[in-house]
Amino acid sequence: MIGRAAIVAVGSELLTPSRTETNSLLITEQLERFGIEVLYKSVVGDDRLELAAAVRAALSRVDLLVCCGGLGPTDDDVTRETVSEVLGRVLVEDERVAAKIEARFSSSGMQMPSINRRQAMVPSGARVIDNAHGTAPGLWFEDAGRFVLLLPGPPREMRAMLAWSVEQLLAPEAPRLSLIRCVIRITGRTESRTEETMQPLYAGWAQQTTPISATILASLGHIELHLSARAASRVQAQAAVDTAAHEVAEVLGLDAYSIDGRSLEQVVGDLLLERGLRIAVAESCTGGLLASRLTDVSGSSRYVERAVVAYANEAKVSLMGVSERLIAAHGAVCEPVALAMAEGIRAGAGVEVGVGVTGIAGPGGGSEEKPVGTVVVAVVAFGEARTKTFRFAGERDQVKFQATQATLDMVRRMLVSQPSE
Amino acid sequence: MIGRAAIVAVGSELLTPSRTETNSLLITEQLERFGIEVLYKSVVGDDRLELAAAVRAALSRVDLLVCCGGLGPTDDDVTRETVSEVLGRVLVEDERVAAKIEARFSSSGMQMPSINRRQAMVPSGARVIDNAHGTAPGLWFEDAGRFVLLLPGPPREMRAMLAWSVEQLLAPEAPRLSLIRCVIRITGRTESRTEETMQPLYAGWAQQTTPISATILASLGHIELHLSARAASRVQAQAAVDTAAHEVAEVLGLDAYSIDGRSLEQVVGDLLLERGLRIAVAESCTGGLLASRLTDVSGSSRYVERAVVAYANEAKVSLMGVSERLIAAHGAVCEPVALAMAEGIRAGAGVEVGVGVTGIAGPGGGSEEKPVGTVVVAVVAFGEARTKTFRFAGERDQVKFQATQATLDMVRRMLVSQPSE
Repeated sequence: MIGRAAIVAVGSELLTPSRTETNSLLITEQLERFGIEVLYKSVVGDDRLELAAAVRAALSRVDLLVCCGGLGPTDDDVTRETVSEVLGRVLVEDERVAAKIEARFSSSGMQMPSINRRQAMVPSGARVIDNAHGTAPGLWFEDAGRFVLLLPGPPREMRAMLAWSVEQLLAPEAPRLSLIRCVIRITGRTESRTEETMQPLYAGWAQQTTPISATILASLGHIELHLSARAASRVQAQAAVDTAAHEVAEVLGLDAYSIDGRSLEQVVGDLLLERGLRIAVAESCTGGLLASRLTDVSGSSRYVERAVVAYANEAKVSLMGVSERLIAAHGAVCEPVALAMAEGIRAGAGVEVGVGVTGIAGPGGGSEEKPVGTVVVAVVAFGEARTKTFRFAGERDQVKFQATQATLDMVRRMLVSQPSE
Repeated sequence: MIGRAAIVAVGSELLTPSRTETNSLLITEQLERFGIEVLYKSVVGDDRLELAAAVRAALSRVDLLVCCGGLGPTDDDVTRETVSEVLGRVLVEDERVAAKIEARFSSSGMQMPSINRRQAMVPSGARVIDNAHGTAPGLWFEDAGRFVLLLPGPPREMRAMLAWSVEQLLAPEAPRLSLIRCVIRITGRTESRTEETMQPLYAGWAQQTTPISATILASLGHIELHLSARAASRVQAQAAVDTAAHEVAEVLGLDAYSIDGRSLEQVVGDLLLERGLRIAVAESCTGGLLASRLTDVSGSSRYVERAVVAYANEAKVSLMGVSERLIAAHGAVCEPVALAMAEGIRAGAGVEVGVGVTGIAGPGGGSEEKPVGTVVVAVVAFGEARTKTFRFAGERDQVKFQATQATLDMVRRMLVSQPSE
């Protein structure tokens, strides 16, 4: 039975600084559907020695090795030969495969180049997996209770072959165990405070019939808690994860803004829609990122009325109705100005919710009193106004992101505190 | 001497179907600067057994192992302990490190949670690498001529520590061979047309004393050509790459907008600054993304005067001075409306360059005549106006991105066509 898998992606281009390897994401998703756990994954170059070492290491640690890439016709495609060698298989030309490759070429009015004949070499005892979108067939080996699946690298070719292999070859060998995941998104507390709050839950989860695994991921402005459970049935795993997610939502209260994969902008959008409200935003230091995040959501045209980005003070005066005297008295980064921006844009647009964000994204423009990263947010709605001053760490783009995150969160908390109609 | 490296990223979240591992890209880039080749890379979960196996495997194959992640304060952070165990080192609390972590918390008015004390545990004989952006210090080991570098996972913390380690710790141990890369960014042509134009150059590059390798990477709205050269000296490799980059710039003409790593928004910003011009933008379907990209550039407050995002037609009328009759006659997505938006925002802001973007980002809102992905852009400057209608493929966010890319490119071409003062 297959319980644990390793994924090895083959290709020197995947070891360069500009390429991320993404086939393994899809492979992982498919394996997890059948309760197969990915223990590790590796990327190796087009190098027989390294690939052989990776294959040997995998076969000593897991039941299933999935290799992706290196099945092409050229000299630097070494996967077929290397895996055959490690498994002690002889390569023999398969006439049926050769005929298919030739037919592929002739259907485009071409003759098969002689190098493509390599792709018809099939290791003894291997099962051939048809490739509907290219010339490289996949291969499936069983070797003393361990399994090896070789797939081509181009995603378009790999995808269909993976789906077929998982259904036809893996499923019969896979455990009945199903793995279910859930991501809980959190704002308004630090990683360590989240961890401290969560600790008491962990103990109980470990004791359950269906234990829950949990990992906390933190980045600036953003904390995620990843839960997962493995159980004999999908239903059972899902139920355990759902219960755990609701326990988390309970202890974290409003700080947990999403337990169903929704982004913060999606959550805010849904709250606005539910309550039949429209929003207008006045941005300075976030430079349009707040509007862009709000409008990333499909259907946001139903509640985003307008956004104005005013870097220059004159633009704040003319577009947002902020008084020149106010800016002269306090500077552009202060709570009264943020509030005037929020109320100015709200009234100008004739909508229910107004937002103003002003601050210093850096790297220039900071002072001792108002250092880079100082951001002031104001939200007005239902005749209520809230303002808050933040001090964010990081580079310009990180300050921008954290400012939008904090702003969306203020809007969310304000909307939640108002009963829906 | 360090010639060959392996990178191991640690974190169970990096084995889930939704996460790509990206720290290794930056690490590869830095290692290549000193001619260190990355032989392979792996991702392992927060699992002592698996990590220990990965560390042992790496130490048997390479001179340098870089591990990233798993240095946090919580129970699932296992890198420090596991690597110490494999290398046979004892962990001892380092008072200087503990004091630094405490100071970090107290500077934010917090007490250090007791779990953070783990991060002050230093393996015997290891060198501590300061972390200016977080509590997890890095660690550097030398072990019988092999080297191990442990860095934290959060990119913001990792980045500065990596740069420091490479200069101070790796460079003295690295080979003299230098690898230099250069990225050429291209708009306005397809991948295959780019490849066709490049082909004649490839042959010459392969024959040179310092040969040039080239790869084309294409994604929606974006083509990159990556060049690299390896030579006995940095100067020699750099010279070969520079010459090749200029040959490319020559054959691609205006389509190559950057050979020095600058983004399109940076190129546009520099052109505006050089020419002493200011810009104002009126956005509809891009929802603020255009403004956000323009203001991602440090110092953009010197030339971005304002941006207005109008989803609602009334906002187009009141903020951008577009006439209601125009919208009624042609609909909101057409060249006359884009032009009115561009000219309206330009005149209202009293600046030299005005931009209008209107379109259908999807998934809803398309029609047979104007399907999802239809985007109209207008740029006005120097009494000249250019308009263009595009039809982009992809999801909502991809349409938004391609629309901003096309818009920035239109602005760039218009500015380049005007002699600087």
